Amino acid sequence: MNESATPATTSQHQANGHHLALRRVAIDTWRENVVYLNRDCDLYRAEGFQALAKVEVRANGQRLLATLNVVGDSTIVACNELGVSEDAFAQFGLEEGQSVTISQAEPPASIGALFRKIEGERLRREEYRAIVRDIAERRYSKIELTAFVVACNRNELDREEVYFLTEAMVASGRRLDWHEPLVVDKHCIGGIPGNRTSMLVVPIVAAHGLLCPKTSSRAITSPAGTADTMEVLADVELPFARLSEIVREHRGCLAWGGTADLSPADDVLISVERPLAIDSPGQMVASILSKKIAAGSTYLVLDLPLGPSAKVRTMPDAQRLRRLFEYVAQRMHLTLDVVITDGRQPIGDGIGPLLEARDVMRVLENDPLAPNDLRQKALRLAGRMIEADPDVRGGDGFAIARDILDSGRALARMRAIIAAQGGRDFDHRRVELGALAFEVCAPRSGVVTGIDNLQIARIARLAGAPKVVRAGVELRRKLGDAVAAGEPLYRVYAAYAADRDFARAASERASGFTIGTADEIPEVFVEF
Amino acid sequence: MNESATPATTSQHQANGHHLALRRVAIDTWRENVVYLNRDCDLYRAEGFQALAKVEVRANGQRLLATLNVVGDSTIVACNELGVSEDAFAQFGLEEGQSVTISQAEPPASIGALFRKIEGERLRREEYRAIVRDIAERRYSKIELTAFVVACNRNELDREEVYFLTEAMVASGRRLDWHEPLVVDKHCIGGIPGNRTSMLVVPIVAAHGLLCPKTSSRAITSPAGTADTMEVLADVELPFARLSEIVREHRGCLAWGGTADLSPADDVLISVERPLAIDSPGQMVASILSKKIAAGSTYLVLDLPLGPSAKVRTMPDAQRLRRLFEYVAQRMHLTLDVVITDGRQPIGDGIGPLLEARDVMRVLENDPLAPNDLRQKALRLAGRMIEADPDVRGGDGFAIARDILDSGRALARMRAIIAAQGGRDFDHRRVELGALAFEVCAPRSGVVTGIDNLQIARIARLAGAPKVVRAGVELRRKLGDAVAAGEPLYRVYAAYAADRDFARAASERASGFTIGTADEIPEVFVEF
Repeated sequence: MNESATPATTSQHQANGHHLALRRVAIDTWRENVVYLNRDCDLYRAEGFQALAKVEVRANGQRLLATLNVVGDSTIVACNELGVSEDAFAQFGLEEGQSVTISQAEPPASIGALFRKIEGERLRREEYRAIVRDIAERRYSKIELTAFVVACNRNELDREEVYFLTEAMVASGRRLDWHEPLVVDKHCIGGIPGNRTSMLVVPIVAAHGLLCPKTSSRAITSPAGTADTMEVLADVELPFARLSEIVREHRGCLAWGGTADLSPADDVLISVERPLAIDSPGQMVASILSKKIAAGSTYLVLDLPLGPSAKVRTMPDAQRLRRLFEYVAQRMHLTLDVVITDGRQPIGDGIGPLLEARDVMRVLENDPLAPNDLRQKALRLAGRMIEADPDVRGGDGFAIARDILDSGRALARMRAIIAAQGGRDFDHRRVELGALAFEVCAPRSGVVTGIDNLQIARIARLAGAPKVVRAGVELRRKLGDAVAAGEPLYRVYAAYAADRDFARAASERASGFTIGTADEIPEVFVEF
Repeated sequence: MNESATPATTSQHQANGHHLALRRVAIDTWRENVVYLNRDCDLYRAEGFQALAKVEVRANGQRLLATLNVVGDSTIVACNELGVSEDAFAQFGLEEGQSVTISQAEPPASIGALFRKIEGERLRREEYRAIVRDIAERRYSKIELTAFVVACNRNELDREEVYFLTEAMVASGRRLDWHEPLVVDKHCIGGIPGNRTSMLVVPIVAAHGLLCPKTSSRAITSPAGTADTMEVLADVELPFARLSEIVREHRGCLAWGGTADLSPADDVLISVERPLAIDSPGQMVASILSKKIAAGSTYLVLDLPLGPSAKVRTMPDAQRLRRLFEYVAQRMHLTLDVVITDGRQPIGDGIGPLLEARDVMRVLENDPLAPNDLRQKALRLAGRMIEADPDVRGGDGFAIARDILDSGRALARMRAIIAAQGGRDFDHRRVELGALAFEVCAPRSGVVTGIDNLQIARIARLAGAPKVVRAGVELRRKLGDAVAAGEPLYRVYAAYAADRDFARAASERASGFTIGTADEIPEVFVEF
């Protein structure tokens, strides 16, 4: 039989003077705030706190939500102290020994709306606002977050709800204003290894004079994100004030978007979407458009690759997704140009940060080794963006982009941006790749009829990319190329034996390549 | 630019001799296993571990899955040590200083099946086995668990899948065998405060000679579970060997089911279902039937209350749920008798552990103050169970049960069970209830036409029940009773001022009672 008090209200704690001294506990709990309370603390005994309960810590008018761990060792935290994990301590920005109070956290205000969504109901605009605000403020537990993500999966959101969600996500963070009527951007929905067009499009478009302040993500499940590849050449984690200067001077930048507090709820949602491989249309649209709108874009070219191993696999699916993007963009007053592209195989020759940086620089320098598919795709996307310029006639964008690239103006602009972002030493003629390499060869002669984007990405990741920048996959054959038995299809680079062995085992299970006859190559009828 | 190795295989760690000394860290992380590694530990640096990653710890042929926290303070854990949280340390049962190895945990084998369920696919029997096995072994993260629960919500499981899930849950733990052909049990789907029929049914049925080894749960969202109320009278946390002796001697017991490892996956699932208020038909059926079958029952009487504030609110819903229970029970070879009962209001007079224990003892002692609705319902349920006896004619059960109760044989059997379970001092004539009490009175004269089960339960919980056993609600009027303006409807008992104030504020917002005219009382056409 147990009998104990239940929690009093916050005001009572404070009235009763339940003050504790703040103490930093050198435990890194990553993104989770944890506080440590001694088991013999009066407060713990009197208020019926439970281990793992969500508590609210207040000090100097600030408050922090955290998970409670109960400690039986006074050397970690004494009776009159409240221990705070490293990340949480940094968020507080207070000194050790300062006085804090602690109370049970109230459940998030939007929890009723969450329960209704779990039951499959349609939610209203204010309900999305409330949910997304609670998510951005880290008021949701992992359980509540996951429930929201899964309940919104599988076309459970109608297009009006996707608009509400997008709008709420923009409102949850900072919204940049570049004080210009036209701010262009491009984005790809992902899934195609090596598809580093942004690093070509930004200098071309900026050289034309359009404002293109590009913020990108790091790889989450892919072998390299634009931010990872750009980081080979320059700093990508820049304070916003510096970024702003660079953009004003050079009309463009290539930075990581994580520091600007753009659509912060999106980052929280991604932390549960990725482990569950959830990428539903509604969530994809809200995630991408909220980030772009918060970044201040007014004109977006969206690359939507279509292919048997791409994220979108049939033309009807691509058209449905395009219409959803267009509907929400129009409600949010963003001009959107969706381009359905060829997603049957990786773009460029290299996959992994160093290899992709080499492809990009080869294209910019008009090097004979430059991969032509990457060059062509970048020029076409840049052309579409340049046509946002009211002085450019429809259809002229591609030729303008090509002229900027061929004349070396794109390279000059890229060099200026790299220098402004604290350029690193990089020469695409002397790239030092991972020393532990092996080749995967054709088991028989024929024509390459298929390259599995997912399997090639998996092999590159196992080889160490993007964490090991020297690791990755170098493609020697692309769709339609003839190959003789025993000739190499691709080469894998790793820096560590364990990585090489994992990558080799995966490539032996499935190389990712299909060899057949020319008539077996799947066709896609896309714009480019 | 960061560059580091990715994790090697377990065999490599061991080959490389990455042994650490086990150290107990006196931090209570409740049901989550946490291990602590020093940031300067070679292993941490070499293997690319990340804070919050799932790791596998091995020692002496045992293994433990845990979440990694990284520590920057050698007094908590030194470079050559692996710190282990209290609960995890207890699970290991090793000495401090023993040698352990650590590696990154493999993702659960059933993760592919989980992803398919999230996408709305129907899963096969082996897939449910694999998922439930991983859940029972704590291989799922909170994110994965929640995704499974939400994906299975809202009639997403067909009845064959509910059967697969139930079967897998039984297989995930221990299954008791009482070595008798007939083992009876009763269960209620919940939602009706005060509904303590088990504590009457067990002694009646056991006195008749049927084997009724009842294991119950503690309250999770209600003001008292059977285990909480029985704990007022006796111990409920008994080692299985002792429980078994008691059952052999007295033909029955009233114990908490948590110690017997019955359907352990159910307990894990409940830990995420409850915070999300998820109680879908499929999950309810799998949860209840798996527990009962694992406990060795062969014959189950299921109480399914129907009413405007019960879990089941319409007769078609009740019939649909009944058929699902019957389908799965039949596939699992369990004889099932579903009884749809009157769930329009609480059962008995008291709500809260002490108050409910008093109601039960009053019925057993044939006290004039005994609540008749509780007596009648218990007799009817016991009658249905007694009819499981092949020597009893259909229709005779009720009279047999009544005779056992009226003659005092039920009381004698209950006293024997209480004594065997380490009886406590309890006299229903001298019950000391919470000292801080207040009454809620009728705002106008009329007849009680409705009592909201949810609101009454909420007020009892706010008053402190079940943690504060003296707290709760004592009903003074039931459905159909006449009441004059200002007369008490119920009395609330609390032990602490904060609890009383919370309960009072809730009762002022909504008393839970509706007063009107006799013709406004909702009718339900149920068996009893």
